[in-house]
Amino acid sequence: MDDDPTTEILEATYRALCQHGYANLTVGDIAAEAERSKSLVHYYYGSKANLFSEFLRFLYNEYTTQLTSIEDEPPREQLFSILDIVLSDDETTPSQELRTAMLEVKVQAPYDDAIQARLRRFDDFLFERVQEIIIAGVDAGEFADDVNPTVAAEFFVTTITGAHTRRVAVGYPSERLYEPITRYVETHLLAAETTGDPR
Amino acid sequence: MDDDPTTEILEATYRALCQHGYANLTVGDIAAEAERSKSLVHYYYGSKANLFSEFLRFLYNEYTTQLTSIEDEPPREQLFSILDIVLSDDETTPSQELRTAMLEVKVQAPYDDAIQARLRRFDDFLFERVQEIIIAGVDAGEFADDVNPTVAAEFFVTTITGAHTRRVAVGYPSERLYEPITRYVETHLLAAETTGDPR
Repeated sequence: MDDDPTTEILEATYRALCQHGYANLTVGDIAAEAERSKSLVHYYYGSKANLFSEFLRFLYNEYTTQLTSIEDEPPREQLFSILDIVLSDDETTPSQELRTAMLEVKVQAPYDDAIQARLRRFDDFLFERVQEIIIAGVDAGEFADDVNPTVAAEFFVTTITGAHTRRVAVGYPSERLYEPITRYVETHLLAAETTGDPR
Repeated sequence: MDDDPTTEILEATYRALCQHGYANLTVGDIAAEAERSKSLVHYYYGSKANLFSEFLRFLYNEYTTQLTSIEDEPPREQLFSILDIVLSDDETTPSQELRTAMLEVKVQAPYDDAIQARLRRFDDFLFERVQEIIIAGVDAGEFADDVNPTVAAEFFVTTITGAHTRRVAVGYPSERLYEPITRYVETHLLAAETTGDPR
């Protein structure tokens, strides 16, 4: 745990959100999780809405750091690393509880412009990263040259979002949802000719 | 409007859900929308939880009727008709309000087995319909014979779910989300050789 109370509070927000969900989350829950007083939390972050907005910025920074950490890989590997990062279930990535809470947050978006603006940054970042990688892959001849990077990136982001939603809504195990995505990307979306499968 | 009060109440639930959202929906809202008394609603449907479960059954019946109404079309047309049905925004299909409310319902699924079971029926039905159509299309030579119907159907359902979630969460217009799906299905997922595009 960080010694900086502002970071500690954001890390406590993460744990409190996973535990209580978004709708029921209170500043008191966050303070309890941080082992700090409510008034200290308000001192640093003001209202619950402001704290939550800062929390989404904090999550966004973690997300973008993770998604740019693999920039030195070749395009095809980068794309599969991104799928691993956003779809995997190991302990370093968001738990089922965080996925559920984030879906709750998404439901608020039509009623809360600040939340929607924050969520768009996640969506846009993923879209732009994937688009860049596909452009680089087409240029390098790793992906078929008739792949349209914008259309393909839009498709990726949509499919990844759908995997997250289905995991919460219908509770299918990740293997059922994620393996077909990876398989389809590999064999149909990019450059079938480089997989050894003449398609 | 139907004269049968049980159907009238379910139709009123639809309108009340679009107007109030799921979290705030009360039996009083539904009764007001149906122009009936709360006690009459309880008389026919018991608790709010039971009414809502019956409402999801009613929506499911409408959904499956719509998705089977196109069974006489050839496989490729059926698949695009399904995309039209589940992704279009015209007045006969779910409004943005219903999509938002249904996303709220999905968030409840991890905490409510009855809701999750109902949601799985929608998900399973779409999966099975798409899988059947792809099998028929591969048999008929309309789709490439290396398309795996199970993997492709899983991919479809995930992508469609993602389009619904992104529309609520980031508020992009349908054209941005839906056109790339249709385009990718047409040119990459099924049988590129029948589209006139040599890919």
